Amino acid sequence: MINIAILGCGVVGGGCASLIVENKSMLEALANDTVDIKYILDLRDMPDSPFADKMIKDFNIILNDPDVDVVIETMGGARPAYDFSLACLEAGKHVVTSNKEVVSKFGDTLLEAARKNGVNYLFEASVGGGIPLLRTITDGIASSNEITEISGILNGTTNYILTRMFGSGASFENALAEAQEKGYAERNPSADVDGIDAARKTNILAALATGKLAGEELIHTEGITKINGEDVVAAKKYGAEIKLLGRVVRSGDKTYAYVAPHFVPHSNMLSNVSGVYNAVSVSGNYIGDAIIYGQGAGAKATASAVISDVANIISGKEKHATRSFLRDNSFPSDFAEFCCKRYVRFADGENLDKAAMIFENAKILERNAIVTQKMSEKEFSEKISLFKVENVIRVL
Amino acid sequence: MINIAILGCGVVGGGCASLIVENKSMLEALANDTVDIKYILDLRDMPDSPFADKMIKDFNIILNDPDVDVVIETMGGARPAYDFSLACLEAGKHVVTSNKEVVSKFGDTLLEAARKNGVNYLFEASVGGGIPLLRTITDGIASSNEITEISGILNGTTNYILTRMFGSGASFENALAEAQEKGYAERNPSADVDGIDAARKTNILAALATGKLAGEELIHTEGITKINGEDVVAAKKYGAEIKLLGRVVRSGDKTYAYVAPHFVPHSNMLSNVSGVYNAVSVSGNYIGDAIIYGQGAGAKATASAVISDVANIISGKEKHATRSFLRDNSFPSDFAEFCCKRYVRFADGENLDKAAMIFENAKILERNAIVTQKMSEKEFSEKISLFKVENVIRVL
Repeated sequence: MINIAILGCGVVGGGCASLIVENKSMLEALANDTVDIKYILDLRDMPDSPFADKMIKDFNIILNDPDVDVVIETMGGARPAYDFSLACLEAGKHVVTSNKEVVSKFGDTLLEAARKNGVNYLFEASVGGGIPLLRTITDGIASSNEITEISGILNGTTNYILTRMFGSGASFENALAEAQEKGYAERNPSADVDGIDAARKTNILAALATGKLAGEELIHTEGITKINGEDVVAAKKYGAEIKLLGRVVRSGDKTYAYVAPHFVPHSNMLSNVSGVYNAVSVSGNYIGDAIIYGQGAGAKATASAVISDVANIISGKEKHATRSFLRDNSFPSDFAEFCCKRYVRFADGENLDKAAMIFENAKILERNAIVTQKMSEKEFSEKISLFKVENVIRVL
Repeated sequence: MINIAILGCGVVGGGCASLIVENKSMLEALANDTVDIKYILDLRDMPDSPFADKMIKDFNIILNDPDVDVVIETMGGARPAYDFSLACLEAGKHVVTSNKEVVSKFGDTLLEAARKNGVNYLFEASVGGGIPLLRTITDGIASSNEITEISGILNGTTNYILTRMFGSGASFENALAEAQEKGYAERNPSADVDGIDAARKTNILAALATGKLAGEELIHTEGITKINGEDVVAAKKYGAEIKLLGRVVRSGDKTYAYVAPHFVPHSNMLSNVSGVYNAVSVSGNYIGDAIIYGQGAGAKATASAVISDVANIISGKEKHATRSFLRDNSFPSDFAEFCCKRYVRFADGENLDKAAMIFENAKILERNAIVTQKMSEKEFSEKISLFKVENVIRVL
């Protein structure tokens, strides 16, 4: 008899409960055992929930019940989700989460607690929502490749906004308002549009690729709020879309991890990813490039990823402690040395002839915009300090 | 000490040997043991191979050596690859293969032999080359979804030819000749251009999704040899690319499996897959659509997939007998009942007014071409029998 407890009955937690009920016979076949939800923890009264008889408000009932084997944490927020997860792992319960903030902030401690207690801490749903991404990277690519790069569209809200700006010529403000109307963006959109959500996911991907977990604040992060219609026109002229990318890039003995909007040329499959979809490109020394694409959010898709973790645990397929994250505050490498091309939109009245002199071999894109040659962040910021600039976007 | 034997030192087998040597320390860390190639079987003399000291010509040396734990079969062809694989499994050795013909023809027997002998028979590289596809479907999607559809570009050669026909307006014959020059197509291209290769891969995907293995000859298969410049023009007008797709489609209690060229509308991500790349779209009742994209062939990419299987075996992560294929000659469902829209190019002189009458609500695309409404194969073939037709292409 396998008993599951769910912490938090919001959109994702509720989706997980429904999926467990709907696909019960499949899960039981995988487990070769009965599989049931025993408790759902939520502080709210939910008398009309189909799971009303399972609802409890006291976490300790779950923690102290030895019959609870697997705990699904879909509370969101760093605390108490972290404390509850740690307590469950230390009590010998497997924990599965969709909570990127907890994994990004405390993944090292929680994986270590899982290892010590012979259980799993899995978080497939924390990056890329429904996309079967993390297990594919670990089992399908990292086991036979040195991973050289991961670049992904990790935030559906910003991708929706950028798609609307490209498609209908909407301004950032109007596209954001539309995303809010449709329920794709929060009332306070900062976590999405400022790149914070993508930075957490990038931090997790970087840890997966290297085994090193950085502090979130060490992931260089830029959002999409400065992008306007002129940038859209310039990108089209360049043959590119603008996408907010989270990137982990190995270059020699350096590994950079950052989030920023990019010109993504149409030759790159990521440029075709539109609306709220996510996609992640993974490059390895043998596989070349592989891309995994799908729904990055939504109750059902995210539940699919959570329950795939549960299924791999109850089928006995997931061995505990196959992953470990080591806290490393010297990771990632100093972003000042990161090299790329950059699109620059100058303030009105700036002298483009002077810009062409300072940025040798730059490509003039518009009357006030260029694309530079490849150079480091350090070199670029020295050169650009001579000009008044409206926006800078890296080029993939 | 883990010893590996490789059967067949062609492009893929040689790539596997190189990858094992290059990523040896990573494999040894996963296995927590030493990992070495002990034998490479090939009938050819290869004195200049970097692996000359491992080369043998007698399969029985491998079969009878109890120190060989894992056998990589990269011989190609149905026999003796099947016989060697079966013998190795029965001798308690894990077998990993890239050989789609063997898996499609004998996967049921080989998986059963693996189960009986407590070892693995894995074939990640048999579909989609380097793309981490099969494990992602099994562990990441099927464990938490009812799979409703798999549609994929499974053959890089035909995708290269179609991409050239769309991009440069090349004729089929010229695009094929170019593919042959570049080494993407065989001198005898039938297995690719007639869809046979894609049908084997489709058969494997269907078995993965349903547990039922059909005879290859039961997969309805059409190639790309009838496609010409007029079809390309019509597809562009329709807003689509033409792609050879292998499809497994559930509809109610029916499951269809077939290979045929399709109009793939530009709104579908598969339309953006160009050149020798492969991509597979998987739909489930919770995940929605996910797409996995990458290099469908090539020594390094295919070796990456083979060695990911080896890695999952030696790390102890892959439990034997998690898959089983049951031979079922009543599977797939009768293709006569399969419903879709179809593009039809009529012979010169056919009466389009009559066609518009017979095919109610059809869309007139060109002076000699229409796209019909959705109807079954049976209904379509009755109606189309009244006309002289140059080509028919299904619409996704």
